[in-house]
Amino acid sequence: MPAPDGHLKIKRVAIDTEPENTVFLSRQCAVYRPEEFRALKKIEVTSGGKSLLATLSITDDHAITAPDELGLGVQAFRRLGAPEGAAVEIEQATPPRSLDAVRRKIAGEVMSPDEIKAIINDIAAHRYSPMEIAAYLIAAASFTTTDEVLAMTRAMAASGAQIDWDAPLVVDKHCIGGIPGNRTSMIVAPIVAAHGLTMPKTSSRAITSPSGTADTMEVLANVALSIDEMKDVVEREHACLAWGGHVNLSPADDVLITVERPLSIDTREQMVASILSKKLAAGSTHIVLDIPMGPTAKVRSQSEAVRLRKLMEYVSAEIGLVIDVVFTDGAQPVGRGIGPVLEARDVMAVLNNEAHAPADLRARALLLAGRVLDFDPDLRGGMGRKRAQELLDSGKALAAMERIIDAQGRADKPACAGELTAEIIATHEGVVAAMDCFRIARIARLAGAPMDKGAGIDLFKKMGDPVKKGDALYRIHSCFSSDFEFAKAMAHEHSGVTVDGAPVRKSVHT
Amino acid sequence: MPAPDGHLKIKRVAIDTEPENTVFLSRQCAVYRPEEFRALKKIEVTSGGKSLLATLSITDDHAITAPDELGLGVQAFRRLGAPEGAAVEIEQATPPRSLDAVRRKIAGEVMSPDEIKAIINDIAAHRYSPMEIAAYLIAAASFTTTDEVLAMTRAMAASGAQIDWDAPLVVDKHCIGGIPGNRTSMIVAPIVAAHGLTMPKTSSRAITSPSGTADTMEVLANVALSIDEMKDVVEREHACLAWGGHVNLSPADDVLITVERPLSIDTREQMVASILSKKLAAGSTHIVLDIPMGPTAKVRSQSEAVRLRKLMEYVSAEIGLVIDVVFTDGAQPVGRGIGPVLEARDVMAVLNNEAHAPADLRARALLLAGRVLDFDPDLRGGMGRKRAQELLDSGKALAAMERIIDAQGRADKPACAGELTAEIIATHEGVVAAMDCFRIARIARLAGAPMDKGAGIDLFKKMGDPVKKGDALYRIHSCFSSDFEFAKAMAHEHSGVTVDGAPVRKSVHT
Repeated sequence: MPAPDGHLKIKRVAIDTEPENTVFLSRQCAVYRPEEFRALKKIEVTSGGKSLLATLSITDDHAITAPDELGLGVQAFRRLGAPEGAAVEIEQATPPRSLDAVRRKIAGEVMSPDEIKAIINDIAAHRYSPMEIAAYLIAAASFTTTDEVLAMTRAMAASGAQIDWDAPLVVDKHCIGGIPGNRTSMIVAPIVAAHGLTMPKTSSRAITSPSGTADTMEVLANVALSIDEMKDVVEREHACLAWGGHVNLSPADDVLITVERPLSIDTREQMVASILSKKLAAGSTHIVLDIPMGPTAKVRSQSEAVRLRKLMEYVSAEIGLVIDVVFTDGAQPVGRGIGPVLEARDVMAVLNNEAHAPADLRARALLLAGRVLDFDPDLRGGMGRKRAQELLDSGKALAAMERIIDAQGRADKPACAGELTAEIIATHEGVVAAMDCFRIARIARLAGAPMDKGAGIDLFKKMGDPVKKGDALYRIHSCFSSDFEFAKAMAHEHSGVTVDGAPVRKSVHT
Repeated sequence: MPAPDGHLKIKRVAIDTEPENTVFLSRQCAVYRPEEFRALKKIEVTSGGKSLLATLSITDDHAITAPDELGLGVQAFRRLGAPEGAAVEIEQATPPRSLDAVRRKIAGEVMSPDEIKAIINDIAAHRYSPMEIAAYLIAAASFTTTDEVLAMTRAMAASGAQIDWDAPLVVDKHCIGGIPGNRTSMIVAPIVAAHGLTMPKTSSRAITSPSGTADTMEVLANVALSIDEMKDVVEREHACLAWGGHVNLSPADDVLITVERPLSIDTREQMVASILSKKLAAGSTHIVLDIPMGPTAKVRSQSEAVRLRKLMEYVSAEIGLVIDVVFTDGAQPVGRGIGPVLEARDVMAVLNNEAHAPADLRARALLLAGRVLDFDPDLRGGMGRKRAQELLDSGKALAAMERIIDAQGRADKPACAGELTAEIIATHEGVVAAMDCFRIARIARLAGAPMDKGAGIDLFKKMGDPVKKGDALYRIHSCFSSDFEFAKAMAHEHSGVTVDGAPVRKSVHT
């Protein structure tokens, strides 16, 4: 209910609480009784017919928000879209009705597709607080039926934009992630494009990794394409390598991630709904899914991998997606470079058929591209891998990549690898026995990746390589000295590389 | 890791985000790279050897926080206890280690007592964000063993102050709540005090109800007693009626409530741990627990009530508390007044043996006081009820109450019932068939209770009473016109009273 006797004026407050909406009310508020509006409560803000939900903070500082004002944080101000000084009303928000279904789920019941749809739509519309999202995710994590996963996938796909391609076969290739340097998409897409299949690839930026495909591609080209721009590029070049965050596919997923990440919730069910909803919204018809397995990968055992594959296959079949799941080696990083610039260098070396291009990145990209090409009904069964290699060796994939880069908008001048460097040196002779993907990724992030495009790690040794005492295992690149110190300190403690059963420590060489 | 090249200066920012700690970092921060410190991340703030965890907001307004400052919200500034201008360092907080146990719980495992202790201590120390608390609560709600409830109870009791009484028998009486006007504690305590047993009663303020016992007692006396003041009152008068929020009993529970309330999580397991941890910390040895049952009460069926009783009995036995569970009628409010002043009036009418004192409040208080007195080994079995009535009828309970009020500190001048009044009128003849406790409580809250002591509802009819068309069912009291309008509007829609199967609506008479 609006206050009977007046309203407040909007003031923009330059406080950023992404992704949440925050508003500020003066404790001396003249219009509302602030005791009724306690801090951290959710309120509904209405101005000129528009409204949104926000979390309330109370302030005693008139400079932040005066008694006749309502302060809107950066997000709330932008999303409400009303000007400063406009009349605004607030009321205590009634919790989203779909929370009733969350409560039923907490009590151990199965949610109906309609209930799941209502929950997902409320989440996409920012009507859930982080604690409410956590309640939903944890309740679902305790047990979720396959049909609930299916309903989540459909609801998440329907929560945002959906792209329709005028092609019978729209292929994609996706990796569940967790392996540094694994930039096969940037090789697979041009191979597939050179062959002539439609592959409108959207990728994420890094969330917890040193680089996402979108970050690495951005070294070479513009990736912030609108749906129309994507369509334009794909119509001309058969493929694109765009940033998915720009096209509002499965926006509920983007909100869920803000809670999954800090709580490290990474359930199979949520992963399936997240990946397949984006593919469904993107209009894909055929997908190759890469599941790397390894002791420091996301999936750590064959049985885990099989369970994930089965759920992917079930949901894909129900939503009409053809899926081909490929298990790959996730024991160590792929390629040499980790971080946007260094990864882009590796990708272009493979496409250029350079002698020193990383063989593992090339082999893996050919494997996956072959599986994608096998979707082509006009190709003889099992000939995808051979065809992929022809397109790569002949330079046709490179040419396709150059055309895709031009179509998306070539980056002005290529960024360079960070100029602050330190080498991590083997402290003893032996053979590289293990590489900790998680730790190596963390060191690359501390070095500044992906924010500084040139920051990261350049690997000189991979598993099975013999090393002599004093050999460089990898080089850290940074652009800023504070990051450089952080990264070196962490590598110093444990490099992430194990030689003959003994970890390499205290061996930084600047 | 602290930034290698400097620190920030503390600034107090007058923004209240109770119960969370919030800090503000300038996007132009000179010392840290704000990209590494994203909004809504948790950071650890350290100054002069003291540290705390807080949620980060980013600001572009130098007046809120300059590039060389760290802004501390009201809570963070108070809890850190360092002065403005003091040097402060921040680092990205490592999530509390006890979250690993929460993740195991999410995966369906049973937590050990040590894990539960670590979780509860971190929660009491404000190391969990609301979303992390929600994760814990929901994971526990999906299944919790009785031994986990026991461990939670012990851990919550140990998380704060613990009171030790120099008495062999320390009795208490507790109601699980949900029934407006049910202020029996304020009659039971003086009866028990008059008998000579030790009853250091602590009560809560209203959370979602129109008044808690602490709110109602505050009409008559000071309730914000320290532990020493409580001990002093109890030593002299055998009993007190203090506000529990002032003495830091089971502080983890107070934090959990901030998440349970908005999510309406009200599991049996959490209720048992919450109530019994407070009793254990308060040093009680013998408890009478009142569980009202009714269609709009917290417990709505006999089977629910029995399950709750059994869990209460199991945990009580394990922690060495003697408990006597009493099921009472929860079909309608108790007494006539709802709201602090009106309830205090009823309580004093019963203690004064006034002819028009509410008979249901008197009867229920005598029942419960009798059960408490039955704990006295010197009383013949089953004679508690008779002894309670003697103490009430003789005026000894009233005298005890007056002494307790004086010992706690008599309120300056009694507040009056709100002067804005409206009567809700029966629209048809018949018999009162149902009263909706939840709705009546809501109307009383809208009228201004418990913040305005005089606001609330005065009931003229109870279930089974015959009414004629035009009879007043109840009167609304308010102190402010906006509250008055809200309460009338809600009563207008549905009064909460059903006469002969038909709800009374649209019958406000001002």
